[in-house]
Amino acid sequence: MTLLHKILEESVLEKIRPTKEEYEKRDKLFRKIKEVAVRVLKDEKVEAEVTLQGSAAKETWIRNNLELDVFVLFPVSTKEWLKVTGLRIIEKIAEKIGKYEIRYAEHPYVRLKVEGVKVDLVPAFKVSDGREAITAVDRTPFHTKWVIEKLNEMGENSRDEVRLLKAFFKGIEVYGAEIKVQGFSGYVTELLVINYGGFAEALSSISQWRPPVFVDPGNFGSKAKFLHKFRGSPMVLPDPVDPNRNAAASVSLESLALASLASWRYITNPSPRFYFKPPAPDVKAERPTYLISFTLNPGYPPETIWGELKRISRSLISTLRRAGFEITRYKLWSDEEKEAAIAIEMINDVLSREVVRIGPPIWEKKHLLSFFTAHDKVLAGPWVEGDRVYLIEPRDVTSFTEFVRGVISRYRSKSINLESVEIKKILQPKTEWLRWFVYGKYWWWT
Amino acid sequence: MTLLHKILEESVLEKIRPTKEEYEKRDKLFRKIKEVAVRVLKDEKVEAEVTLQGSAAKETWIRNNLELDVFVLFPVSTKEWLKVTGLRIIEKIAEKIGKYEIRYAEHPYVRLKVEGVKVDLVPAFKVSDGREAITAVDRTPFHTKWVIEKLNEMGENSRDEVRLLKAFFKGIEVYGAEIKVQGFSGYVTELLVINYGGFAEALSSISQWRPPVFVDPGNFGSKAKFLHKFRGSPMVLPDPVDPNRNAAASVSLESLALASLASWRYITNPSPRFYFKPPAPDVKAERPTYLISFTLNPGYPPETIWGELKRISRSLISTLRRAGFEITRYKLWSDEEKEAAIAIEMINDVLSREVVRIGPPIWEKKHLLSFFTAHDKVLAGPWVEGDRVYLIEPRDVTSFTEFVRGVISRYRSKSINLESVEIKKILQPKTEWLRWFVYGKYWWWT
Repeated sequence: MTLLHKILEESVLEKIRPTKEEYEKRDKLFRKIKEVAVRVLKDEKVEAEVTLQGSAAKETWIRNNLELDVFVLFPVSTKEWLKVTGLRIIEKIAEKIGKYEIRYAEHPYVRLKVEGVKVDLVPAFKVSDGREAITAVDRTPFHTKWVIEKLNEMGENSRDEVRLLKAFFKGIEVYGAEIKVQGFSGYVTELLVINYGGFAEALSSISQWRPPVFVDPGNFGSKAKFLHKFRGSPMVLPDPVDPNRNAAASVSLESLALASLASWRYITNPSPRFYFKPPAPDVKAERPTYLISFTLNPGYPPETIWGELKRISRSLISTLRRAGFEITRYKLWSDEEKEAAIAIEMINDVLSREVVRIGPPIWEKKHLLSFFTAHDKVLAGPWVEGDRVYLIEPRDVTSFTEFVRGVISRYRSKSINLESVEIKKILQPKTEWLRWFVYGKYWWWT
Repeated sequence: MTLLHKILEESVLEKIRPTKEEYEKRDKLFRKIKEVAVRVLKDEKVEAEVTLQGSAAKETWIRNNLELDVFVLFPVSTKEWLKVTGLRIIEKIAEKIGKYEIRYAEHPYVRLKVEGVKVDLVPAFKVSDGREAITAVDRTPFHTKWVIEKLNEMGENSRDEVRLLKAFFKGIEVYGAEIKVQGFSGYVTELLVINYGGFAEALSSISQWRPPVFVDPGNFGSKAKFLHKFRGSPMVLPDPVDPNRNAAASVSLESLALASLASWRYITNPSPRFYFKPPAPDVKAERPTYLISFTLNPGYPPETIWGELKRISRSLISTLRRAGFEITRYKLWSDEEKEAAIAIEMINDVLSREVVRIGPPIWEKKHLLSFFTAHDKVLAGPWVEGDRVYLIEPRDVTSFTEFVRGVISRYRSKSINLESVEIKKILQPKTEWLRWFVYGKYWWWT
């Protein structure tokens, strides 16, 4: 990396290092929550430890992104106990602090907002080793401990290095393990910096990645064994705290590719745009662009909404392509509460009035007969190519809008109200995400 | 088969049975040629037998298709001897009969026209068994003998049955082993009738065929062994005279499929159109249709011309399809002397002004760099889908004609003069084959 990179990264760090006030806020809030928790646990006569976890504990958060992960570590019991009694105790603590809601990951936890800061109150078991974890979150304290140790060993810049990589991943939108992103979690980002020894070193490696990517900060070795154990994953990162788990299991091939492309580009074309997404420019659509939007049915978590949105759009896109729409790009959006949408750009939004139908192999006489029965409005054919019959028939639906309506009507979804579908042709997009979509390249591709 | 079929087939036979005059002409011509040949052989002091072979000998020819295959069977020697001395003697015979030309199959022979009848004078070796054949044609006398025996055993209708199947294959244009057709030779047609026991029985089997088709008139058995030995062939027919040879080696999957489709259709929809191609109706093109025509370089045999025409058109069609032209059908034509042509019908004869380019996988950084260098007029992108980059660039050539010119200019051919290419859009075709092409279904599909 060059001097230009150094200067840019220093100026980025000045914007993303947490402020003194944030550190004070963290301490004050955690103290307050712990006090309440300790009192409730005493009332309940339960021995449990109240601990701070996550980026706030590791001091790797980015300015304006302070969140508190407060884990209440109960003596080991059953998952059932945790879901019922553990959660009840957590709710008691939350009640005394403010308004809360119950969230569901592998098991339920509580989310609060305290003095403008998002706080997750998580019930977990206090196990003696990450490998003993009964629920996934039981490993978290060991993650926290492991990362703190390693970052301390790396020296005083280590947290800045982590913050740069987090900001980079956030900036190019591959940060986060959730379905929406299928990218790099905070923990994985920290592990990358620890493994490669710094931000520049990590970026340089990422730019040269080739899947399956193997990263081994825990120094377990036996790459072949791990690649076999976690085969199918584009990225394999044995969790230093429990090597039976692939810490990078959530990273999709596309996120991996995007991270690699952006790193590669950043090395030759550094720019603050990699870290900070600028406001979208005013644009107008250069080719047919549609917005397909839905209202959401209430009560479904983001994982469900994004999962269904992804499933539906993947199927829709491949159906459109098979029908002859030359789709260039598409993008998903949701506020995770009221609305979801798919934006699609294409070369052509009208299909030809005639369509070639490919019949079964001629040898399948039963299928051949059904084919001729099903396709009885023949404009030309049949003719033979290879060992199949072909014919031309008129096409009923030729417009994009009508075609999409027909396809969507055959789908099913819990969280997305498919009957609410609205299809609009976009000329001059107004919303931010849609303007970036129409813009048609990455903001960081300079 | 029904009474309708019987009546139809009887009326077909009345048109295709050889006339008494044709039998007399055969005898008279063969006597004359044999006389000349015997005299020349005597002068040359060579012991050789002059024999009639082929459909004239087997009495399986179709009216107005009398051709004489006269084989001069020399004592066994080398291929070299046959090509030089054998051919010289054959030429001496031909000289005394009339104008002749030398043709080349596996080895050279002589073609004459005598009193309007095509005569092939073929030098071959007299071997004791088909399996001892030194050149391919040495087997022919054994074919003749074998077929005559079997047809005689089958009874007096057997030759009519053969003629019906020949006329059927001719009518649907799958008759002939040459590259142009890649269909059923006369010998294979005879073997099918012998194997299945008649025309109706053969058609019924063909309509139910499923490749690889195994036909075993020689009763060798061991189907699995033959299918393995001749794997890759859609049709396996161990030659009764030499089972080391697949008599149906020339039958392409497409000819097989066409024969099966037509047989199947004939059974439910009998019509004289299966046997006799009617004159093409007046038609006009319903969708963009082009004729790409070439002049031929002189001196190349039909096998070369059709081979090159097929190779070029296969490549052209797949290039056009990949570029986005939605090709429906295409057909090749040549008079085998002066001209060759490819007719192509499509849904669209103009491409979009913009094209999506798919880059290499992101991991191939060297290829990625060349991709961006090669595609520097970017209208949108790059973006990532899966693990590849995509971008949109303007398309230089959008018209069919210009596109085809560009593609053709990169091909090579000996027999086809590619620089003579003419590309015409067809609206109301005048030539017969082109009218059938534009008509867009088989004449026998009623």
